[in-house]
Amino acid sequence: MLTIKSLNKSYLPEIQQVIDSKTKPLGALGQLEALAKQLTLIQSQGCESVAKHISILKPTMIVFAGDHQIAQQNISIAPSDVTRQMVLNFLHGGAAINCFCRSNQVDMKVVDAGIISPLNEEEKSLSNSFYEQRLGAGINDISIKSAMDESQVKQGLTYGKKIASDVINKGCNILLLGEMGIGNTSSASSLLMAYSQKSVDECVGNGTGINSAQLTVKKQLIEKAVARLIPANVLSEPLYVLKELAGFEVVQMVGAILAAAEHGIAVLIDGFIVTSAALVAVKINPNVREYLIFAHQSNENAHQLMLAMLEAKPLLNLDLRLGEGTGAALALPLLRAATSFYNDMASFESAGVTV
Amino acid sequence: MLTIKSLNKSYLPEIQQVIDSKTKPLGALGQLEALAKQLTLIQSQGCESVAKHISILKPTMIVFAGDHQIAQQNISIAPSDVTRQMVLNFLHGGAAINCFCRSNQVDMKVVDAGIISPLNEEEKSLSNSFYEQRLGAGINDISIKSAMDESQVKQGLTYGKKIASDVINKGCNILLLGEMGIGNTSSASSLLMAYSQKSVDECVGNGTGINSAQLTVKKQLIEKAVARLIPANVLSEPLYVLKELAGFEVVQMVGAILAAAEHGIAVLIDGFIVTSAALVAVKINPNVREYLIFAHQSNENAHQLMLAMLEAKPLLNLDLRLGEGTGAALALPLLRAATSFYNDMASFESAGVTV
Repeated sequence: MLTIKSLNKSYLPEIQQVIDSKTKPLGALGQLEALAKQLTLIQSQGCESVAKHISILKPTMIVFAGDHQIAQQNISIAPSDVTRQMVLNFLHGGAAINCFCRSNQVDMKVVDAGIISPLNEEEKSLSNSFYEQRLGAGINDISIKSAMDESQVKQGLTYGKKIASDVINKGCNILLLGEMGIGNTSSASSLLMAYSQKSVDECVGNGTGINSAQLTVKKQLIEKAVARLIPANVLSEPLYVLKELAGFEVVQMVGAILAAAEHGIAVLIDGFIVTSAALVAVKINPNVREYLIFAHQSNENAHQLMLAMLEAKPLLNLDLRLGEGTGAALALPLLRAATSFYNDMASFESAGVTV
Repeated sequence: MLTIKSLNKSYLPEIQQVIDSKTKPLGALGQLEALAKQLTLIQSQGCESVAKHISILKPTMIVFAGDHQIAQQNISIAPSDVTRQMVLNFLHGGAAINCFCRSNQVDMKVVDAGIISPLNEEEKSLSNSFYEQRLGAGINDISIKSAMDESQVKQGLTYGKKIASDVINKGCNILLLGEMGIGNTSSASSLLMAYSQKSVDECVGNGTGINSAQLTVKKQLIEKAVARLIPANVLSEPLYVLKELAGFEVVQMVGAILAAAEHGIAVLIDGFIVTSAALVAVKINPNVREYLIFAHQSNENAHQLMLAMLEAKPLLNLDLRLGEGTGAALALPLLRAATSFYNDMASFESAGVTV
């Protein structure tokens, strides 16, 4: 079993006192105060007392890409070819996530978790941030059968843990996750439906922008996928749910999240797909939740439902519907700001302010 | 009269085309797309065609501080002394706004627009970012009489324009505004009430956290302030409204906003108080609105009302209630991200993506 420690909440009053001593009305920094509290709690772990200085070191975005056979049923705005093309776009530095990582000084790595056609040697050499961790040529059509087999789930978790542990061992103390995979909202919606037992209408949105005919088919396929499952196994075995419904990219993100929590560092969760990985990781070990920071609230009802299950209030709400980790990369400066005020803001006493 | 040009909207289809050619589903970057459009429109002005490259250069936060005699009526959580103490805190680098400006690489300047007691020479020498532009020792109690006289309004606008023009002439192409002034939500609420003709309950909130007895008094004082006004003058003469209700810091911010728009650069507007300055600036010249970007949506109903009058949708909603410009400083990385994707993101054609 994993050793993921629950954070030492006995530190909270002291952390609150530090924050309340700062030159501002009580609570006036709103969500940034909650963020500073969580980061301090995480970074105080293993220390003998509350951390006086918290930090964002070598923030690293890992974008996991994988394909989904269900996309052949025309329920996405783009064909599966686009997953591979976007991986190449990532390696060329031309995607939105590249821009936002550069803009906010975030290191970025790209993982082929199982796209249909692997990159050739020339393509791989485009960037030294590319990692080949293939579990197959896209998951099976989940409306028909299991997404993958048990050995692929285990290998996927191992792969995800490996790359996350590597970046953490090199000094990263905040992991950002992103994904690419045509068809992967179907997988995330089916995960949500299986765990929430809500109706398909509540669990399925129009992804990045499909039409109503496609949406109808998408809902039917997701209902079929969830109907295949053995309800008792859903409740008791998160790895079973991954095997049945998850994308290769989601399985590896679950591994990465678990590794980050084991190492005691925070993970910045992007949108709907990454949140589905977070949901499963929390099912595997509820202590994981304490290490998760949620970046962006989608307007999609399904994402809001999932966030409610995780009792999460994201930092941003910018009407993004792109994935790739864009929400997480955009939220990172708020984490830096939270550390900055916690570390450097004057107290009433030190500043001679007499409130 | 000021020459503030309305932006050349004939550029919009071409800008939209650039954005829509990027490797993402249409509209998938949500509010960042609107932001990139506005920045491109602003920065294309005076060019012969649409700017291919937009930028955030030397972003500068100017924090204007001023006192309010109405604060003597115990309607704030802190006494007026705190305005001066916070100015010193700014000069020592210990306030929240200092932290966020450092965290997001924003230059910061502090203006004494009229606090009760001026700084002494030793205090002024604490930082070379301090500017003394005093219009008096705090505005009059607006529940009793005019905030200031006409000559102070004119001098305040001139001061605000001067400092903004100076930073713009040194290469700043995005101005951020912040404020400090115990009692200044009363001024902002009365401005809102005068312009919106909404009830006092809709226009007044509890500021940074006063109790219900204080809130009752605050509402009575604001009603008195607004009742003094000549309605016809409110509608026709923004300078009359400033004279009657505005803080010295607000008058100077109005000047700064007008100067930024005259120079054709964008202004990032912080919370309730800065928004009240924006409202008056737009009344002076409606073209100003096109240069304004709104940073943070407060949970206070009064701020939401004011934003609705300006048809503004802010970028962030983090439950901040501090002022100082904190919301603007926190939003700046989103402007950098918008320029980054507009400038550097690959097109479908260049990336070989076949959607």
